[in-house]
Amino acid sequence: MAIIGASADLQKTAGRPLAYLRKHGFDGAIYPVNPRVTHIGEIPCYPDIDSLPAVPDVAIILLGAGRAHQAVRELAQKGTAAAIVLASGYSEAGAEGKDRQQQLQQAAGAMRILGPNTIGLVNLTDGIPLSASGALEMDQFPVGDVGVVSQSGGILGALLSRAAARGIGMSKLISTSNEVDLEMADFIDYLVDDESTKVIALYIEAIRNPQKFRAAALRAQNAGKPIVAFKIGRSEAGARAAISHTGALAGQDTMYDALFRQTGVIRAQRFSDLLDMPSALATQRTLRGKRIAILTSTGGAGTLVSDSLGMAGFETPAPGAQTAAALRALQENMPAALDRNPVDVTLAGLQPDLLRGAIRALAASDDYDALVMIVGSSSLGNPQLMADAICDCLPATDKPIVAFVSPHAPNVARLLNQRHIPAFMEPECCAVALQAMWQTQAQTALQAPGVVQSPSLADLPAGTLNEAQARDLFSRFGIAGVGQTIVSDPAQAQAAALQYGSAVVLKILSSEIMHKSDVGGVCVGVAPDQAGERITQMQTDVYTKTGIRPEQFLVQQMVTSGIELILGFHRDALGSAILLGMGGVTAELLKDTTMRLLPQQGGLSLANAYDMMRELRTWPLLDGYRGRTKADQQALAQAIVSFSNMVASLGDRLIEAEINPLFVLPEGQGVKAADGIAILAD
Amino acid sequence: MAIIGASADLQKTAGRPLAYLRKHGFDGAIYPVNPRVTHIGEIPCYPDIDSLPAVPDVAIILLGAGRAHQAVRELAQKGTAAAIVLASGYSEAGAEGKDRQQQLQQAAGAMRILGPNTIGLVNLTDGIPLSASGALEMDQFPVGDVGVVSQSGGILGALLSRAAARGIGMSKLISTSNEVDLEMADFIDYLVDDESTKVIALYIEAIRNPQKFRAAALRAQNAGKPIVAFKIGRSEAGARAAISHTGALAGQDTMYDALFRQTGVIRAQRFSDLLDMPSALATQRTLRGKRIAILTSTGGAGTLVSDSLGMAGFETPAPGAQTAAALRALQENMPAALDRNPVDVTLAGLQPDLLRGAIRALAASDDYDALVMIVGSSSLGNPQLMADAICDCLPATDKPIVAFVSPHAPNVARLLNQRHIPAFMEPECCAVALQAMWQTQAQTALQAPGVVQSPSLADLPAGTLNEAQARDLFSRFGIAGVGQTIVSDPAQAQAAALQYGSAVVLKILSSEIMHKSDVGGVCVGVAPDQAGERITQMQTDVYTKTGIRPEQFLVQQMVTSGIELILGFHRDALGSAILLGMGGVTAELLKDTTMRLLPQQGGLSLANAYDMMRELRTWPLLDGYRGRTKADQQALAQAIVSFSNMVASLGDRLIEAEINPLFVLPEGQGVKAADGIAILAD
Repeated sequence: MAIIGASADLQKTAGRPLAYLRKHGFDGAIYPVNPRVTHIGEIPCYPDIDSLPAVPDVAIILLGAGRAHQAVRELAQKGTAAAIVLASGYSEAGAEGKDRQQQLQQAAGAMRILGPNTIGLVNLTDGIPLSASGALEMDQFPVGDVGVVSQSGGILGALLSRAAARGIGMSKLISTSNEVDLEMADFIDYLVDDESTKVIALYIEAIRNPQKFRAAALRAQNAGKPIVAFKIGRSEAGARAAISHTGALAGQDTMYDALFRQTGVIRAQRFSDLLDMPSALATQRTLRGKRIAILTSTGGAGTLVSDSLGMAGFETPAPGAQTAAALRALQENMPAALDRNPVDVTLAGLQPDLLRGAIRALAASDDYDALVMIVGSSSLGNPQLMADAICDCLPATDKPIVAFVSPHAPNVARLLNQRHIPAFMEPECCAVALQAMWQTQAQTALQAPGVVQSPSLADLPAGTLNEAQARDLFSRFGIAGVGQTIVSDPAQAQAAALQYGSAVVLKILSSEIMHKSDVGGVCVGVAPDQAGERITQMQTDVYTKTGIRPEQFLVQQMVTSGIELILGFHRDALGSAILLGMGGVTAELLKDTTMRLLPQQGGLSLANAYDMMRELRTWPLLDGYRGRTKADQQALAQAIVSFSNMVASLGDRLIEAEINPLFVLPEGQGVKAADGIAILAD
Repeated sequence: MAIIGASADLQKTAGRPLAYLRKHGFDGAIYPVNPRVTHIGEIPCYPDIDSLPAVPDVAIILLGAGRAHQAVRELAQKGTAAAIVLASGYSEAGAEGKDRQQQLQQAAGAMRILGPNTIGLVNLTDGIPLSASGALEMDQFPVGDVGVVSQSGGILGALLSRAAARGIGMSKLISTSNEVDLEMADFIDYLVDDESTKVIALYIEAIRNPQKFRAAALRAQNAGKPIVAFKIGRSEAGARAAISHTGALAGQDTMYDALFRQTGVIRAQRFSDLLDMPSALATQRTLRGKRIAILTSTGGAGTLVSDSLGMAGFETPAPGAQTAAALRALQENMPAALDRNPVDVTLAGLQPDLLRGAIRALAASDDYDALVMIVGSSSLGNPQLMADAICDCLPATDKPIVAFVSPHAPNVARLLNQRHIPAFMEPECCAVALQAMWQTQAQTALQAPGVVQSPSLADLPAGTLNEAQARDLFSRFGIAGVGQTIVSDPAQAQAAALQYGSAVVLKILSSEIMHKSDVGGVCVGVAPDQAGERITQMQTDVYTKTGIRPEQFLVQQMVTSGIELILGFHRDALGSAILLGMGGVTAELLKDTTMRLLPQQGGLSLANAYDMMRELRTWPLLDGYRGRTKADQQALAQAIVSFSNMVASLGDRLIEAEINPLFVLPEGQGVKAADGIAILAD
């Protein structure tokens, strides 16, 4: 291990890596490089890289940004496999820093780089801390199953110290920061193959290479190693300036939601989830249902947990007759509260056999899928008692057992976590942990649909298509539009309207004006015999508001029995995605939408499409809500797939695309695109 | 202080109160009553209540439920002012327990009772613990400004121990539990008058006396003492079986939301909020705006806080030119990150003068309304440095300053809290604390509108009114209905329809069938010349589905330009409330509703009504969203007030009432009730 720029002052940042390697028992060779001293402690120093006695496996470079690239070049020339660059002042520091980072990359050649601007990595499994993180001042760390990759060095330290205090064991922690070379996905790949890691926790600022991330995340999923990710930037104004509504509805953060959902990554909503969820997932127990038993020796805390479980969609049913009888058989004088849930063993809380009996009875009961133990203040005097009782019962069941510690008693929580019983100090965290377990088991493998033969698209015009042209594009992929006629004057409009039944929709046809209804360019429910008159009025209104005199109009059949949806396309750094949303202004304000990223090749699968439909909060409207006719779900699913195939076929040519509204008619009657936008690259 | 049933074994529950009184330095007279020993420690014991040397100010009764009422009687006869009854086995334990509780109440006579089933109370201000809570095993408690009333004894202990560990000072903690006599509102009243209490925290299971609670909460608000309440039971199926939609939309928990909102009580969403919010409010600093500066010495944690502030609706703008200049003037070599927010002082984090300078510059800046300090791992070596720097700057500003501690460092958080700098270990809690401060300042005094003269209601029929009768009731209070005619056959329908323009709505008129649309009893958008035919069809459809042959029908004018709302009435143990919601199935599924409880006398004020309207997430629809015509907000506000006056006037006679839909027409055109339900008591 070479430490380039090691300081003899072990308090300084440049002194810490050496100090920590020794403090935490690293027993390999250490080569500090420092021309000003001969030894640091008893370890001989080398004046420069050239004079190192052997080629190091890895080098930590503690020099500033001005000198780091020189050290990198020398190490690379020597044949060093990898270097960790701690200096800041690179891509995070403006244009000059970006140049410097490029210089660093060139200097490294084939040598792998972690950083720059990283706090390094900590291998707890093998006792190798390669880091300047102040968190390593702690004397001991529980070694365990959770691997961490963080794009922030400070957060790596926070997680390391918090996990240690909680008794949550970790395997490896890596801070990737600027990712000039090695990036998050590389370390996910590593942790998937790492036998000592069972769960992977990620702290993400931005995913720089989404395709590589997807591949790594799917590998983890296939290997049965859950990934939990906390992603910041949730509050950023994600909406970009766009003509379609899709642009306003699809923020950067919802794209991350889609990415995580499609790769089986569990999203941590609060920072604490990033430890709580992995601690539960590391038990590798399976939550098969949502019925949770709560065993308590204190009323209030049991209710607190029960309430938060209920809020999170879990059930806390009372024990059935058989379970209640098993509980009652434990002791004659048990109080009546045994046939409720939380099961209250106030008087028996400190009798180990009774506690074991109650845990066994609940864990074995067909009434429950998991057990939450409440640790009250009566356990504080003898925390071992509760831990022993739970541990004794663990082998007899494969159901999850987690604990909530009600009074301030971090030592009790630590003891439980160390013994692989996930223990939480906040009642809400029990629900969070169980939810993560539920998500893991509820995941289904991602289907990769085949690539669909695209219709001919060579003849499409460039730029903004008008509504009729957009509709033609959608129909090439099998998405039908409502009946319509293009007209140029009131008389033609009147004639056309009469063939469309009792009411029509009139619209201006223009590739210049996109939000037609905002400028008076749309009239809904017009009686056919008034169509001519309304067109005249519309001409005037639109001209007044926009200065543009519309010359063509659409006379459309009016759809009255369908449900309005929006189907759109959105692209950002993470990839191309399809957005499905309930339409109409109400749903628009309430943002009832869902998204799916497209695979690298081709469009979405039918299963994807059905999942999207069911994720809408207003899904019941499509499914026969309150005695209504069911909507044509099959046709909608097919339209989503077709739209995604269109997006995939057009590739980078497509700038924006949206069908809004897409009417879903009653079962068997299909869908109809009533309005749409498409913008193609010039 | 008398302790009835004091045990000589200080480890036992019955031994603890005496042990804790001595441990925490109570220096008044203690009279333990225990016939089996002469002394506990050095304190003489009395064999019975009769032989006490003086009338105690208060007695703690540690006897079981079988004997407690006897002691209560004797103490009351002796003239004792108050007794605390710890025994369980009362109203929480079935019918027999309820009787026992009544017996206890009778025995007490004029003597006040806390409990039964309570863990007692803790007066930290004066060092008088009257409790068996195991949390009192701790050696020391910071004395401070937060008063706690908890309906659970276990939670009192959890809060006490957690607050002590965090360094949050408390004044008094009371566990009220069964509330046979003294209840939560009594202690709120006490704490409002208590000079040592600045903030009140409540743990609520159920409010037994809503009127008294309201009065006490409003007193606290007027006294400038914020109340923070955590209420469990949020996940309970609150919907009652009801004919109106209101019943399904108004859960028990939303009633509590309304109660808290109307009494200025800040609702804690997570259990930890119940300490975090009071710790911030106890500083009595005012948050005047939403612009927050973040001063950090570690990148990741600053971003974490900034992100959660953004999610909570706060802004974190970069420093303006003047502030940036002030920061830059502190030191020549400061890094460029000074003109961003979070303001990053990585290199300067441990230089006290620089830290003070940066805090002062940000606190004095017109760009910010509050400051969040990030405590990174570099501060761990010298936590005093950060605390000193902040404390030195506090007097120069009245803006809130709170801190987030990024690594695991409970000692640092404790030190800061003890010095009245609210410090949090979770990034999300900074936002929670600031939100509580914001809510306090944003509160407006509750208006109590006058009681309105009610129209004559004596002639109203009892039972379920049909739609025409319900409409008549609403119109007596000034809420107009859409134009309509009652008909009994197709021919009449046809004739009536022709007078209502281009389209009508047809409905069956029945007090038996309430959800008419679910059984084919509603036809919308019927062309007048088809009205007869459709009525014939409707007769057949409804008969097929319900077995009821409708004999009367409504022909209604069809409203096309209005916005659909629902206006309903809901009553439960907390009182009578008015529900306003966006109408239509989409909004119904997305539950866009708000509620207000009625005052004891009369209906809601116009200001209440406007507030309700603005609380709807779809409020923009009423306010000219995307160039649409504004709705008649004034008429809607008046309709809400009128409906509330109807509810107030009918009092207990009213079982259910709902207008659904209520159409709000464009500005100046009023509102129209299109359908309604009213059920009056027989």
